[in-house]
Amino acid sequence: MKATLDHIGIAVSDMGDALAFYRDALGLEIQAPEDVESQRVRAYFVPVGQAALELLEATASDSPIAKYVARRGPGLHHITLRVDDIAAALAQLSARGVRLIDESPRPGAHGSLVAFIHPASAHGVLVELKQTV
Amino acid sequence: MKATLDHIGIAVSDMGDALAFYRDALGLEIQAPEDVESQRVRAYFVPVGQAALELLEATASDSPIAKYVARRGPGLHHITLRVDDIAAALAQLSARGVRLIDESPRPGAHGSLVAFIHPASAHGVLVELKQTV
Repeated sequence: MKATLDHIGIAVSDMGDALAFYRDALGLEIQAPEDVESQRVRAYFVPVGQAALELLEATASDSPIAKYVARRGPGLHHITLRVDDIAAALAQLSARGVRLIDESPRPGAHGSLVAFIHPASAHGVLVELKQTV
Repeated sequence: MKATLDHIGIAVSDMGDALAFYRDALGLEIQAPEDVESQRVRAYFVPVGQAALELLEATASDSPIAKYVARRGPGLHHITLRVDDIAAALAQLSARGVRLIDESPRPGAHGSLVAFIHPASAHGVLVELKQTV
């Protein structure tokens, strides 16, 4: 299939410290944050060409990002690949024995559809698929 | 400064297992591997739009990738941002107190210049800067 890198999710434990690097030291543009209630995270997008960095801060202690940071510390969390037809992509992966976290697409930001692949089937990397509208 | 995502470095412990996912299940194009002697790694680039995934396999037990995999397992390892003037970027970062692994640029693949920023100054992320020629 054809896949384009959409963004890299970065788990952050202290957004002030992260912004001191990306905004103040590197001088990159930081977009207005967006809350993703279902994941209990606040996301700051940082455009870097066609792709973006997504700085992710937990907004509740049971957020997946809070659990990740508690276990591994802040750092690279996931990559998101944009595909034309997410349902077809998930069917293809299932047929090849890939373990999916989301068996069917669920709503993401801005009307997109998203699904996560289990890192056990992606050699240790958490991969998100995304279809935009 | 202006920065464009060049690639994401992914530490691999078993290239066959990684290729089974990226090449066979996802169906992505994998470029011919390239050995980077100075880092004792073999790198497979996987284009995903303007950016690429860089699958990194250690070629010696003292490779930084071998050490990383032994400590944390396979997974996301670093991000590489392309800048127009790497010397100016490093000077700007130094002036703002950012800790650098490479104080001055060193030769990378295809005549590029590269330098790593210490994760302690980048909120836990290993960031490489790259200037192409």
